[in-house]
Amino acid sequence: MSLRYFEDFPQGYTVDLGTFTLTAEEIIDFAQRYDPQPMHVDPEAARASIYGGLIASGWHTVASYMRRLVDGVIGASASLGSPGIDNIRWPKPVRPGEQLHCRFTVLDSRLSNSRPDRGIVRSRGEVLDQADEVLMSLEAVNFFARRPPG
Amino acid sequence: MSLRYFEDFPQGYTVDLGTFTLTAEEIIDFAQRYDPQPMHVDPEAARASIYGGLIASGWHTVASYMRRLVDGVIGASASLGSPGIDNIRWPKPVRPGEQLHCRFTVLDSRLSNSRPDRGIVRSRGEVLDQADEVLMSLEAVNFFARRPPG
Repeated sequence: MSLRYFEDFPQGYTVDLGTFTLTAEEIIDFAQRYDPQPMHVDPEAARASIYGGLIASGWHTVASYMRRLVDGVIGASASLGSPGIDNIRWPKPVRPGEQLHCRFTVLDSRLSNSRPDRGIVRSRGEVLDQADEVLMSLEAVNFFARRPPG
Repeated sequence: MSLRYFEDFPQGYTVDLGTFTLTAEEIIDFAQRYDPQPMHVDPEAARASIYGGLIASGWHTVASYMRRLVDGVIGASASLGSPGIDNIRWPKPVRPGEQLHCRFTVLDSRLSNSRPDRGIVRSRGEVLDQADEVLMSLEAVNFFARRPPG
């Protein structure tokens, strides 16, 4: 894969970032470290909860999206970092063994006014289930270097 | 600690969530799983980068805040989950060994119109360094059950 620059992220550009699954073990392991609420770490308590069973920490879902974004987009790009993320939403829980897929879509793309060496790309990231229902969405801002001349 | 209900989260309520440190090993381990960019996983490449050394994945910082929030606030509360998060910002990088501390502040707090059993609490979460500079901030919405009568 050749290096992607700002010019490679026009508005509407979409990348299918592939599929993944979180096992119960992975869900519990992440949550024991970072989000030890009963519905994420204790299958019995989760069954008795409003969720009816173990669900992944929302941060585990976001981190799993990030991994696919690095593998599929940012890793082979002239990325200059991200100032932040807006509008993370978790409309439906992620359950163990579900096949999930990830999608990256450029919402808008413009040159920086203050730093002429780079552009600013705003994107939507999504994690979807097999029925294409959205389980997680967020809006990210990323800086990418402009393609060098010549 | 007694269980906290919606009524225990008035506007302006602040909780000091204590301190933590991320070691280089923890930074690399998290990033190898979820954010394998050179400045998070490769100390040599990080030194040569614009960051001048290893820095934590922004998601690792957020997850570390979440852990303190669960331990200090949500774990012993009548939490009914979160629909989402807004305005995550990472104004300064997190470096290995830095002593960091976390703060939770209620921005506003109101009863739900549609679900009379609960209230809606919007909060700011922050991770700060020893000079009290903000390294990460976010705004969260959480639902909490109202205190049962009597």
